Amino acid sequence: MSDRIEAQIAFLREADQLKSVLRASRLIDLSRFENSAEHSWHVMLYALVLADQAGPEVDISRVLKMLLIHDIVEIDAGDSPIHGQVDSAAQEAAEQAAADRLFGLLPDDQNDDFRALWDEFEAGETPDARFAKAIDRVQTPVANLASGGGSWRDYDVTLKKLDQRVGQPISRGAPGLWHWLRPKLQSFFSS
Amino acid sequence: MSDRIEAQIAFLREADQLKSVLRASRLIDLSRFENSAEHSWHVMLYALVLADQAGPEVDISRVLKMLLIHDIVEIDAGDSPIHGQVDSAAQEAAEQAAADRLFGLLPDDQNDDFRALWDEFEAGETPDARFAKAIDRVQTPVANLASGGGSWRDYDVTLKKLDQRVGQPISRGAPGLWHWLRPKLQSFFSS
Repeated sequence: MSDRIEAQIAFLREADQLKSVLRASRLIDLSRFENSAEHSWHVMLYALVLADQAGPEVDISRVLKMLLIHDIVEIDAGDSPIHGQVDSAAQEAAEQAAADRLFGLLPDDQNDDFRALWDEFEAGETPDARFAKAIDRVQTPVANLASGGGSWRDYDVTLKKLDQRVGQPISRGAPGLWHWLRPKLQSFFSS
Repeated sequence: MSDRIEAQIAFLREADQLKSVLRASRLIDLSRFENSAEHSWHVMLYALVLADQAGPEVDISRVLKMLLIHDIVEIDAGDSPIHGQVDSAAQEAAEQAAADRLFGLLPDDQNDDFRALWDEFEAGETPDARFAKAIDRVQTPVANLASGGGSWRDYDVTLKKLDQRVGQPISRGAPGLWHWLRPKLQSFFSS
Protein backbone atom coordinates (compact mmCIF):
# COMPACT_ATOMS: atom_id res chain seq x y z
CA MET A 1 0.00 0.00 0.00
CA SER A 2 2.87 2.34 0.79
CA ASP A 3 4.37 1.78 -2.69
CA ARG A 4 0.99 2.66 -4.16
CA ILE A 5 0.81 5.95 -2.27
CA GLU A 6 4.42 6.76 -3.21
CA ALA A 7 3.57 6.34 -6.91
CA GLN A 8 0.39 8.41 -6.56
CA ILE A 9 2.21 11.21 -4.74
CA ALA A 10 5.03 11.18 -7.31
CA PHE A 11 2.41 11.85 -10.00
CA LEU A 12 0.74 14.57 -7.91
CA ARG A 13 4.08 16.28 -7.26
CA GLU A 14 4.90 16.21 -10.98
CA ALA A 15 1.49 17.70 -11.74
CA ASP A 16 2.52 20.85 -9.84
CA GLN A 17 4.35 21.92 -13.00
CA LEU A 18 1.07 22.47 -14.87
CA LYS A 19 0.86 25.73 -12.88
CA SER A 20 3.89 26.95 -14.85
CA VAL A 21 2.55 26.13 -18.34
CA LEU A 22 1.34 29.43 -19.78
CA ARG A 23 -1.50 29.68 -22.27
CA ALA A 24 -1.95 32.29 -24.98
CA SER A 25 -5.00 33.67 -23.14
CA ARG A 26 -4.93 36.30 -20.42
CA LEU A 27 -6.89 36.77 -17.21
CA ILE A 28 -9.94 39.00 -17.66
CA ASP A 29 -8.15 41.85 -15.84
CA LEU A 30 -5.29 41.46 -18.40
CA SER A 31 -2.76 41.34 -15.54
CA ARG A 32 -0.97 38.27 -16.87
CA PHE A 33 -1.25 35.13 -19.00
CA GLU A 34 -3.36 32.28 -17.71
CA ASN A 35 -1.74 28.97 -16.77
CA SER A 36 -3.11 25.56 -17.65
CA ALA A 37 -3.79 24.48 -14.05
CA GLU A 38 -6.06 27.43 -13.23
CA HIS A 39 -7.63 27.13 -16.70
CA SER A 40 -8.44 23.49 -15.88
CA TRP A 41 -10.12 24.59 -12.65
CA HIS A 42 -12.10 27.26 -14.46
CA VAL A 43 -13.40 25.00 -17.23
CA MET A 44 -14.52 22.49 -14.61
CA LEU A 45 -16.52 25.28 -12.99
CA TYR A 46 -17.97 26.12 -16.42
CA ALA A 47 -18.97 22.47 -16.88
CA LEU A 48 -20.70 22.27 -13.50
CA VAL A 49 -22.52 25.61 -13.82
CA LEU A 50 -23.52 25.05 -17.46
CA ALA A 51 -24.44 21.39 -17.00
CA ASP A 52 -27.97 22.12 -18.19
CA GLN A 53 -26.49 22.82 -21.63
CA ALA A 54 -25.50 19.16 -21.92
CA GLY A 55 -27.78 16.51 -23.36
CA PRO A 56 -29.37 13.95 -21.00
CA GLU A 57 -26.84 11.35 -22.12
CA VAL A 58 -23.94 13.36 -20.67
CA ASP A 59 -22.52 12.35 -17.28
CA ILE A 60 -21.23 15.61 -15.76
CA SER A 61 -19.14 13.79 -13.16
CA ARG A 62 -17.19 12.06 -15.95
CA VAL A 63 -16.89 15.38 -17.79
CA LEU A 64 -15.38 16.96 -14.68
CA LYS A 65 -12.81 14.17 -14.41
CA MET A 66 -11.93 14.55 -18.09
CA LEU A 67 -11.41 18.29 -17.72
CA LEU A 68 -9.40 17.75 -14.53
CA ILE A 69 -6.77 15.76 -16.44
CA HIS A 70 -7.20 17.06 -20.00
CA ASP A 71 -4.17 19.37 -20.04
CA ILE A 72 -1.69 17.40 -17.89
CA VAL A 73 0.25 16.32 -21.00
CA GLU A 74 1.17 20.00 -21.47
CA ILE A 75 3.74 19.60 -18.67
CA ASP A 76 5.94 17.88 -21.25
CA ALA A 77 4.32 18.89 -24.56
CA GLY A 78 3.49 22.55 -23.87
CA ASP A 79 0.29 24.38 -24.76
CA SER A 80 -0.50 24.83 -28.46
CA PRO A 81 -2.62 27.98 -28.93
CA ILE A 82 -5.64 27.21 -31.12
CA HIS A 83 -5.01 30.28 -33.23
CA GLY A 84 -1.25 29.73 -33.53
CA GLN A 85 0.72 27.84 -36.17
CA VAL A 86 1.26 24.28 -34.97
CA ASP A 87 2.78 21.17 -36.56
CA SER A 88 -0.16 18.93 -35.64
CA ALA A 89 1.64 15.62 -36.15
CA ALA A 90 4.60 16.68 -34.00
CA GLN A 91 2.30 18.06 -31.30
CA GLU A 92 0.24 14.86 -31.30
CA ALA A 93 3.40 12.73 -30.96
CA ALA A 94 4.67 14.93 -28.11
CA GLU A 95 1.36 14.64 -26.29
CA GLN A 96 1.26 10.85 -26.66
CA ALA A 97 4.79 10.60 -25.24
CA ALA A 98 3.80 12.96 -22.42
CA ALA A 99 0.77 10.81 -21.60
CA ASP A 100 2.99 7.71 -21.54
CA ARG A 101 5.43 9.31 -19.12
CA LEU A 102 3.08 11.27 -16.86
CA PHE A 103 0.18 8.85 -16.45
CA GLY A 104 2.86 6.13 -16.32
CA LEU A 105 3.95 7.50 -12.93
CA LEU A 106 0.65 6.24 -11.49
CA PRO A 107 -0.06 2.67 -10.34
CA ASP A 108 -0.93 0.50 -13.36
CA ASP A 109 -4.70 0.44 -12.80
CA GLN A 110 -4.86 4.24 -12.54
CA ASN A 111 -2.52 4.68 -15.50
CA ASP A 112 -5.01 2.63 -17.54
CA ASP A 113 -8.04 4.54 -16.22
CA PHE A 114 -6.58 8.02 -16.65
CA ARG A 115 -5.18 7.22 -20.08
CA ALA A 116 -8.51 5.84 -21.28
CA LEU A 117 -10.28 8.97 -20.05
CA TRP A 118 -7.73 11.26 -21.71
CA ASP A 119 -7.86 9.24 -24.96
CA GLU A 120 -11.66 9.57 -24.92
CA PHE A 121 -11.39 13.33 -24.45
CA GLU A 122 -8.84 13.66 -27.23
CA ALA A 123 -10.94 11.61 -29.66
CA GLY A 124 -13.95 13.81 -28.89
CA GLU A 125 -16.50 11.29 -30.11
CA THR A 126 -18.52 10.30 -27.03
CA PRO A 127 -21.24 12.62 -25.66
CA ASP A 128 -19.13 13.27 -22.53
CA ALA A 129 -16.05 14.15 -24.59
CA ARG A 130 -18.01 16.35 -26.97
CA PHE A 131 -19.46 18.34 -24.07
CA ALA A 132 -16.04 18.57 -22.38
CA LYS A 133 -14.47 19.87 -25.60
CA ALA A 134 -17.25 22.42 -26.06
CA ILE A 135 -16.75 23.71 -22.53
CA ASP A 136 -12.97 23.80 -22.97
CA ARG A 137 -13.49 26.09 -25.98
CA VAL A 138 -16.00 28.49 -24.44
CA GLN A 139 -14.03 29.89 -21.50
CA THR A 140 -11.51 31.93 -23.50
CA PRO A 141 -14.07 33.66 -25.77
CA VAL A 142 -16.06 34.67 -22.70
CA ALA A 143 -12.89 36.08 -21.12
CA ASN A 144 -11.87 37.85 -24.33
CA LEU A 145 -15.31 39.43 -24.70
CA ALA A 146 -15.06 40.65 -21.09
CA SER A 147 -11.58 42.12 -21.55
CA GLY A 148 -12.13 43.83 -24.89
CA GLY A 149 -10.42 41.28 -27.10
CA GLY A 150 -7.64 39.69 -25.03
CA SER A 151 -5.68 37.07 -26.98
CA TRP A 152 -7.74 37.64 -30.17
CA ARG A 153 -5.72 40.80 -30.76
CA ASP A 154 -2.39 38.96 -30.45
CA TYR A 155 -3.39 36.45 -33.10
CA ASP A 156 -5.38 38.67 -35.50
CA VAL A 157 -8.38 36.44 -34.98
CA THR A 158 -11.42 37.00 -37.20
CA LEU A 159 -15.00 35.90 -36.76
CA LYS A 160 -14.51 33.43 -39.59
CA LYS A 161 -11.59 31.79 -37.77
CA LEU A 162 -13.62 31.64 -34.55
CA ASP A 163 -16.54 30.02 -36.36
CA GLN A 164 -14.20 27.23 -37.47
CA ARG A 165 -11.96 26.65 -34.48
CA VAL A 166 -14.33 27.51 -31.67
CA GLY A 167 -17.79 27.42 -33.21
CA GLN A 168 -17.55 23.88 -34.52
CA PRO A 169 -16.60 22.17 -31.24
CA ILE A 170 -18.98 24.32 -29.17
CA SER A 171 -21.98 23.84 -31.46
CA ARG A 172 -21.23 20.12 -31.61
CA GLY A 173 -21.13 19.60 -27.83
CA ALA A 174 -23.27 22.42 -26.45
CA PRO A 175 -25.39 23.95 -29.23
CA GLY A 176 -27.41 26.17 -26.86
CA LEU A 177 -24.21 27.79 -25.69
CA TRP A 178 -23.10 28.55 -29.23
CA HIS A 179 -26.54 29.98 -29.95
CA TRP A 180 -25.98 32.34 -27.00
CA LEU A 181 -22.34 33.15 -27.79
CA ARG A 182 -22.38 33.62 -31.59
CA PRO A 183 -24.33 36.93 -31.68
CA LYS A 184 -22.01 38.39 -29.05
CA LEU A 185 -18.98 37.45 -31.14
CA GLN A 186 -20.59 38.91 -34.24
CA SER A 187 -21.33 42.13 -32.41
CA PHE A 188 -17.75 42.34 -31.07
CA PHE A 189 -16.08 41.76 -34.43
CA SER A 190 -18.36 44.14 -36.31
CA SER A 191 -17.77 47.01 -33.89
CA MET B 1 -33.21 30.62 -20.97
CA SER B 2 -31.03 33.51 -22.11
CA ASP B 3 -31.39 35.22 -18.68
CA ARG B 4 -30.29 31.99 -17.06
CA ILE B 5 -27.13 31.77 -19.16
CA GLU B 6 -26.39 35.45 -18.54
CA ALA B 7 -26.52 34.87 -14.78
CA GLN B 8 -24.38 31.74 -15.06
CA ILE B 9 -21.78 33.49 -17.19
CA ALA B 10 -21.72 36.50 -14.83
CA PHE B 11 -20.77 34.11 -12.02
CA LEU B 12 -18.16 32.37 -14.18
CA ARG B 13 -16.61 35.70 -15.18
CA GLU B 14 -16.45 36.81 -11.55
CA ALA B 15 -14.78 33.50 -10.66
CA ASP B 16 -11.82 34.48 -12.84
CA GLN B 17 -10.60 36.58 -9.91
CA LEU B 18 -9.80 33.47 -7.85
CA LYS B 19 -6.68 33.21 -10.05
CA SER B 20 -5.43 36.41 -8.40
CA VAL B 21 -5.95 35.32 -4.78
CA LEU B 22 -2.52 34.33 -3.49
CA ARG B 23 -2.01 31.68 -0.83
CA ALA B 24 0.82 31.51 1.72
CA SER B 25 2.17 28.38 -0.01
CA ARG B 26 4.61 28.33 -2.91
CA LEU B 27 4.91 26.15 -5.99
CA ILE B 28 7.28 23.22 -5.50
CA ASP B 29 9.93 24.96 -7.64
CA LEU B 30 9.61 27.98 -5.28
CA SER B 31 9.21 30.29 -8.30
CA ARG B 32 6.17 32.08 -6.86
CA PHE B 33 3.20 31.86 -4.50
CA GLU B 34 0.34 29.57 -5.43
CA ASN B 35 -3.07 31.01 -6.24
CA SER B 36 -6.36 29.61 -5.02
CA ALA B 37 -7.66 28.61 -8.47
CA GLU B 38 -4.69 26.40 -9.34
CA HIS B 39 -4.69 25.09 -5.76
CA SER B 40 -8.35 24.09 -6.25
CA TRP B 41 -7.40 22.22 -9.42
CA HIS B 42 -4.54 20.46 -7.68
CA VAL B 43 -6.56 19.29 -4.67
CA MET B 44 -9.21 17.88 -7.02
CA LEU B 45 -6.46 15.88 -8.70
CA TYR B 46 -5.34 14.71 -5.24
CA ALA B 47 -8.91 13.64 -4.45
CA LEU B 48 -9.27 11.66 -7.68
CA VAL B 49 -5.86 9.97 -7.48
CA LEU B 50 -6.13 9.24 -3.74
CA ALA B 51 -9.77 8.16 -3.87
CA ASP B 52 -8.84 4.74 -2.49
CA GLN B 53 -7.95 6.51 0.77
CA ALA B 54 -11.63 7.42 1.25
CA GLY B 55 -14.08 5.15 3.03
CA PRO B 56 -16.73 3.31 0.97
CA GLU B 57 -19.37 5.82 2.07
CA VAL B 58 -17.55 8.68 0.30
CA ASP B 59 -18.82 9.83 -3.12
CA ILE B 60 -15.72 11.11 -4.94
CA SER B 61 -17.79 12.96 -7.54
CA ARG B 62 -19.41 15.04 -4.76
CA VAL B 63 -15.98 15.58 -3.21
CA LEU B 64 -14.70 16.94 -6.53
CA LYS B 65 -17.61 19.37 -6.73
CA MET B 66 -16.99 20.51 -3.16
CA LEU B 67 -13.30 21.13 -3.85
CA LEU B 68 -14.15 22.86 -7.12
CA ILE B 69 -16.08 25.57 -5.25
CA HIS B 70 -14.52 25.42 -1.77
CA ASP B 71 -12.33 28.54 -2.12
CA ILE B 72 -14.53 30.77 -4.29
CA VAL B 73 -15.46 32.90 -1.25
CA GLU B 74 -11.81 33.98 -1.12
CA ILE B 75 -12.49 36.31 -4.06
CA ASP B 76 -14.10 38.64 -1.51
CA ALA B 77 -12.81 37.31 1.81
CA GLY B 78 -9.18 36.53 0.91
CA ASP B 79 -7.18 33.50 1.91
CA SER B 80 -6.43 32.99 5.61
CA PRO B 81 -3.19 31.01 6.01
CA ILE B 82 -3.70 28.12 8.43
CA HIS B 83 -0.51 29.00 10.28
CA GLY B 84 -1.17 32.75 10.33
CA GLN B 85 -2.95 34.87 12.97
CA VAL B 86 -6.59 35.21 11.99
CA ASP B 87 -9.64 36.73 13.67
CA SER B 88 -11.83 33.67 13.14
CA ALA B 89 -15.15 35.40 13.76
CA ALA B 90 -14.36 38.22 11.33
CA GLN B 91 -13.08 35.76 8.71
CA GLU B 92 -16.20 33.62 9.10
CA ALA B 93 -18.46 36.66 8.69
CA ALA B 94 -16.51 37.79 5.62
CA GLU B 95 -16.82 34.34 4.05
CA GLN B 96 -20.55 34.16 4.70
CA ALA B 97 -21.04 37.56 3.07
CA ALA B 98 -18.86 36.44 0.16
CA ALA B 99 -20.94 33.28 -0.29
CA ASP B 100 -24.11 35.41 -0.27
CA ARG B 101 -22.78 37.72 -2.98
CA LEU B 102 -20.89 35.26 -5.20
CA PHE B 103 -23.24 32.26 -5.24
CA GLY B 104 -26.04 34.83 -5.36
CA LEU B 105 -24.96 35.73 -8.90
CA LEU B 106 -26.20 32.29 -10.02
CA PRO B 107 -29.82 31.39 -10.86
CA ASP B 108 -31.72 30.68 -7.63
CA ASP B 109 -31.69 26.88 -7.90
CA GLN B 110 -27.92 26.82 -8.43
CA ASN B 111 -27.35 29.38 -5.69
CA ASP B 112 -29.16 26.98 -3.33
CA ASP B 113 -27.24 23.92 -4.56
CA PHE B 114 -23.80 25.52 -4.49
CA ARG B 115 -24.40 27.14 -1.12
CA ALA B 116 -25.56 23.86 0.41
CA LEU B 117 -22.47 22.10 -0.92
CA TRP B 118 -20.17 24.85 0.39
CA ASP B 119 -21.94 24.88 3.77
CA GLU B 120 -21.49 21.11 3.97
CA PHE B 121 -17.77 21.46 3.21
CA GLU B 122 -17.35 24.21 5.78
CA ALA B 123 -19.15 22.23 8.49
CA GLY B 124 -16.89 19.25 7.77
CA GLU B 125 -19.22 16.70 9.33
CA THR B 126 -20.36 14.42 6.49
CA PRO B 127 -18.03 11.70 5.13
CA ASP B 128 -17.69 13.59 1.83
CA ALA B 129 -16.78 16.86 3.60
CA ARG B 130 -14.35 15.13 5.96
CA PHE B 131 -12.51 13.55 3.03
CA ALA B 132 -12.52 16.84 1.09
CA LYS B 133 -11.05 18.68 4.09
CA ALA B 134 -8.38 16.02 4.57
CA ILE B 135 -7.36 16.29 0.91
CA ASP B 136 -7.38 20.10 1.10
CA ARG B 137 -4.87 19.88 3.97
CA VAL B 138 -2.48 17.34 2.44
CA GLN B 139 -1.38 19.13 -0.74
CA THR B 140 0.72 21.85 0.93
CA PRO B 141 2.69 19.52 3.25
CA VAL B 142 3.55 17.33 0.24
CA ALA B 143 4.73 20.43 -1.64
CA ASN B 144 6.68 21.75 1.36
CA LEU B 145 8.42 18.39 1.85
CA ALA B 146 9.35 18.41 -1.84
CA SER B 147 10.73 21.96 -1.74
CA GLY B 148 12.68 21.71 1.50
CA GLY B 149 10.23 23.52 3.76
CA GLY B 150 8.39 26.08 1.62
CA SER B 151 5.85 28.08 3.62
CA TRP B 152 6.71 26.29 6.88
CA ARG B 153 9.84 28.43 7.09
CA ASP B 154 7.86 31.68 6.68
CA TYR B 155 5.57 30.79 9.57
CA ASP B 156 8.02 29.06 11.94
CA VAL B 157 5.86 25.97 11.79
CA THR B 158 6.69 23.13 14.17
CA LEU B 159 5.70 19.48 14.08
CA LYS B 160 3.42 20.10 17.04
CA LYS B 161 1.53 22.83 15.14
CA LEU B 162 1.25 20.56 12.09
CA ASP B 163 -0.13 17.73 14.22
CA GLN B 164 -2.92 20.04 15.35
CA ARG B 165 -3.79 22.05 12.26
CA VAL B 166 -3.05 19.51 9.57
CA GLY B 167 -2.89 16.15 11.35
CA GLN B 168 -6.34 16.38 12.90
CA PRO B 169 -8.30 17.02 9.67
CA ILE B 170 -6.22 14.57 7.64
CA SER B 171 -6.43 11.75 10.16
CA ARG B 172 -10.16 12.39 10.52
CA GLY B 173 -10.94 12.19 6.79
CA ALA B 174 -8.13 10.06 5.37
CA PRO B 175 -6.35 8.18 8.18
CA GLY B 176 -4.23 6.09 5.81
CA LEU B 177 -2.81 9.24 4.30
CA TRP B 178 -1.86 10.62 7.69
CA HIS B 179 -0.24 7.27 8.55
CA TRP B 180 1.88 7.70 5.41
CA LEU B 181 2.63 11.41 5.89
CA ARG B 182 3.36 11.66 9.63
CA PRO B 183 6.74 9.82 9.61
CA LYS B 184 7.90 12.00 6.72
CA LEU B 185 7.01 15.15 8.67
CA GLN B 186 8.74 13.81 11.76
CA SER B 187 11.86 13.04 9.76
CA PHE B 188 11.83 16.51 8.16
CA PHE B 189 11.42 18.40 11.41
CA SER B 190 14.04 16.35 13.29
CA SER B 191 16.69 16.83 10.65
